[in-house]
Amino acid sequence: MSIKIQKTFEALFELEEIRGIFREAVPTGLNAEEEAALQKKITELKAIIADLEAGTGTPKVTKIAGTLNVRSREEQYINIHPIQAAGRLTDEARKALISYGDGYSTCDFCRKPFRLDKITRPSIADFHEDLAKWLNMDQARVVPGARRGFQAVTSTLVNKGDSVIVSALAHYTEFLAVEGAGGIVKEVPLNDKNIVTAEATADKIEEVKTETGKLPVLVMIDHYDYQFANEHEITAIGKVAHQYDIPFLYNGAYTVGVQPVDGKKIGADFVVGSGHKSMASVAPSGVLAINDDFAPKTLRTTAMVGDLTKRKFGIKEVELLGCTLMGGTLLSMMASFPTVKERVLHWDEEVKKSNYFIDALLRVEGSKVLSEYPRKHTLTKVDTTGSYDTVAQTHKRRGFFFSDELTAHGIVGEFAGATRTWKLNTYGLNWNQVHYLADAFTEIAEKYELPVQKEKIQPNPV
Amino acid sequence: MSIKIQKTFEALFELEEIRGIFREAVPTGLNAEEEAALQKKITELKAIIADLEAGTGTPKVTKIAGTLNVRSREEQYINIHPIQAAGRLTDEARKALISYGDGYSTCDFCRKPFRLDKITRPSIADFHEDLAKWLNMDQARVVPGARRGFQAVTSTLVNKGDSVIVSALAHYTEFLAVEGAGGIVKEVPLNDKNIVTAEATADKIEEVKTETGKLPVLVMIDHYDYQFANEHEITAIGKVAHQYDIPFLYNGAYTVGVQPVDGKKIGADFVVGSGHKSMASVAPSGVLAINDDFAPKTLRTTAMVGDLTKRKFGIKEVELLGCTLMGGTLLSMMASFPTVKERVLHWDEEVKKSNYFIDALLRVEGSKVLSEYPRKHTLTKVDTTGSYDTVAQTHKRRGFFFSDELTAHGIVGEFAGATRTWKLNTYGLNWNQVHYLADAFTEIAEKYELPVQKEKIQPNPV
Repeated sequence: MSIKIQKTFEALFELEEIRGIFREAVPTGLNAEEEAALQKKITELKAIIADLEAGTGTPKVTKIAGTLNVRSREEQYINIHPIQAAGRLTDEARKALISYGDGYSTCDFCRKPFRLDKITRPSIADFHEDLAKWLNMDQARVVPGARRGFQAVTSTLVNKGDSVIVSALAHYTEFLAVEGAGGIVKEVPLNDKNIVTAEATADKIEEVKTETGKLPVLVMIDHYDYQFANEHEITAIGKVAHQYDIPFLYNGAYTVGVQPVDGKKIGADFVVGSGHKSMASVAPSGVLAINDDFAPKTLRTTAMVGDLTKRKFGIKEVELLGCTLMGGTLLSMMASFPTVKERVLHWDEEVKKSNYFIDALLRVEGSKVLSEYPRKHTLTKVDTTGSYDTVAQTHKRRGFFFSDELTAHGIVGEFAGATRTWKLNTYGLNWNQVHYLADAFTEIAEKYELPVQKEKIQPNPV
Repeated sequence: MSIKIQKTFEALFELEEIRGIFREAVPTGLNAEEEAALQKKITELKAIIADLEAGTGTPKVTKIAGTLNVRSREEQYINIHPIQAAGRLTDEARKALISYGDGYSTCDFCRKPFRLDKITRPSIADFHEDLAKWLNMDQARVVPGARRGFQAVTSTLVNKGDSVIVSALAHYTEFLAVEGAGGIVKEVPLNDKNIVTAEATADKIEEVKTETGKLPVLVMIDHYDYQFANEHEITAIGKVAHQYDIPFLYNGAYTVGVQPVDGKKIGADFVVGSGHKSMASVAPSGVLAINDDFAPKTLRTTAMVGDLTKRKFGIKEVELLGCTLMGGTLLSMMASFPTVKERVLHWDEEVKKSNYFIDALLRVEGSKVLSEYPRKHTLTKVDTTGSYDTVAQTHKRRGFFFSDELTAHGIVGEFAGATRTWKLNTYGLNWNQVHYLADAFTEIAEKYELPVQKEKIQPNPV
């Protein structure tokens, strides 16, 4: 780790220990002993900052709690990990986390009716309204990950043996959410371009109807899938679902938080997004937005009455199990939200950067892009079997040579040793970083004398 | 906020902005512009630290992301909030959170078989084994809050119309977990001391059997309840459950993380704990531990097969929806764990401090303790209707006078304006702070000329 980055972490950690001193004191202030401890820590802190300024010194802290490495991948490297890119915290989210990390930190001013989304201080109630409005939906709730949003919906709508339409590229959490509710997934086939079409969805619905004698109870489709990040015919699929009067869940795990999403325009009954995947938030976090047709059922409040005490728990929502993200996770979402709202407006620029990098990769002869091309997303599946992997055949480090080279160039996030067909994500990199990334890939190719075209070339057919 | 605390936060925030500069740079280092930005921030940081050292200056940062207040309750005040006390982060957890806050931060080195609890770097796999061992159970998983642990169990064991035995003091999340699974709660009555006994549990099981013709499918009882934090006959209740061959869930939301819990000794089939309530962790977090009898069923892996693609998702666990806490929440649990393991060994001392404070409160004539007494827990329900609330009758601020006084003494966490019968928690306060707290309550009484006994008195009968 660069010594400046190292010293930045050491300064942060020293300040957390200073906070610890205040936490052990009585409210009237520090006693002599505590004051001495504080001054000692400030002296240490100043030495750390002198090192940070000068770029000098040696690492003093390398472990947290004795065993955990300091994670500095985002500071040290360019990280092209397929699922991490858009979940990186904003500066403000990191500040919020520092301030609101403690357990039930959202509950300082919880008042009747005692539900997370009703709390006004901090402005959690407003955030929920803003979230719904931003997605152009009627209601929104935060959930511990997109998967818990799927679960709330399947648990509400799906009974034992019911069919649920998903895509042939559906994420495993959709499978599990259907399985947990006792339902059965029915996959819509892809066309020859690996796209889920509205027509294929309609055909699948008909097929299920014929086979089972019943319509599916839910259509749940990813706008962009997790494998290729291809764009599927989401709005037309929503229309098909509605023609059959089947509720439609829009899986926005790869869109909500990176590009504009308009639930009403899409015709979504449910919009699900992921906080840690695409909204610059701490895991596990996410959003479930619902339209007025389905909100009463999905967000039904508890009807259970204690047989003996006759207790009832008011407006607690069954599918959410009451409150969901009662601390730092939610505050990270809230603190990132202004940035997130702004950044979705610049999605075009992110796609440009994605294509810039993919074009550079394709100039290395033998490289292929398995996702649709030109890219409409920052996540891409590539195939470097015919380019970089040809080196692996004879290199003593085999497939690891490529990861070694990437690391040497300060690039991480690939799947070490598994870089024939693999996924990467350029989301959030600035142009300097994207240029650096593209140049690094070119340099590695040139080092191993792989042919590199000077001009942009069209990708090989998949 | 004290200026020193204010400046501590400002220094932390400045360092997060410094991190932001590194994050925008290429791996080879900062360019001239970035270096200039860094030096500017370091200059600002040094000025903040000079103020921190001298206790001078004025607040420069009062909001995060433009709208969120800086939360400094734990630094500024003594916080006796009933559910926040044992969820306060340790210094190490706050460091871990700084380092691992980003979205999917646990997934850097995720390898086959691609499941959170199998990850070895950071040492998540070991942590899971340690957790199970520490609770003396066979398997452990992390979950987004204790409620999600209840849900995994009820969803596995409870079918429509099944009865589940809970206590007459059961937490609402137990009601919701049963309701979500389609079951019905059956409450065990309390004895005259507000204790759930084994005998009453057996009677209730018999009653359910007679009424419904079927045994309950689960007994789910809190070791200490959320209302009084009275200790219930948990081990004997476990025995009763087993005599009827009914699985037994030990709700340790108020024990796991603050006192030793031995699942086998208790006879628990399931132990559920809360990270943000009692394990010094970020919300939502918790643990579900299971013995070998019930692990295969509760932790069953997915059996769903894509009808078209024949895809299967290997060892992903249905009830957990695959991975659970993929980032900072889990790392906060892990970083606090060494401290948590140590602190449970000093539970006796925490109970002593609890009783010390309650004794002081009881010396203010008319005060009552509604929980069992002497206290066996740090959470206590008190009744100050006959003491402090007599002042409220004539005070122009009515019931708020008491909150005003507490705040003036640097004490927070009471429920402002609702302090007749109310709950407080002394967990984690050191003796200095407990003495301060007791003295503050006495001072407030004396200020309003409430009679205060010099000697320890027995509480009024409830």
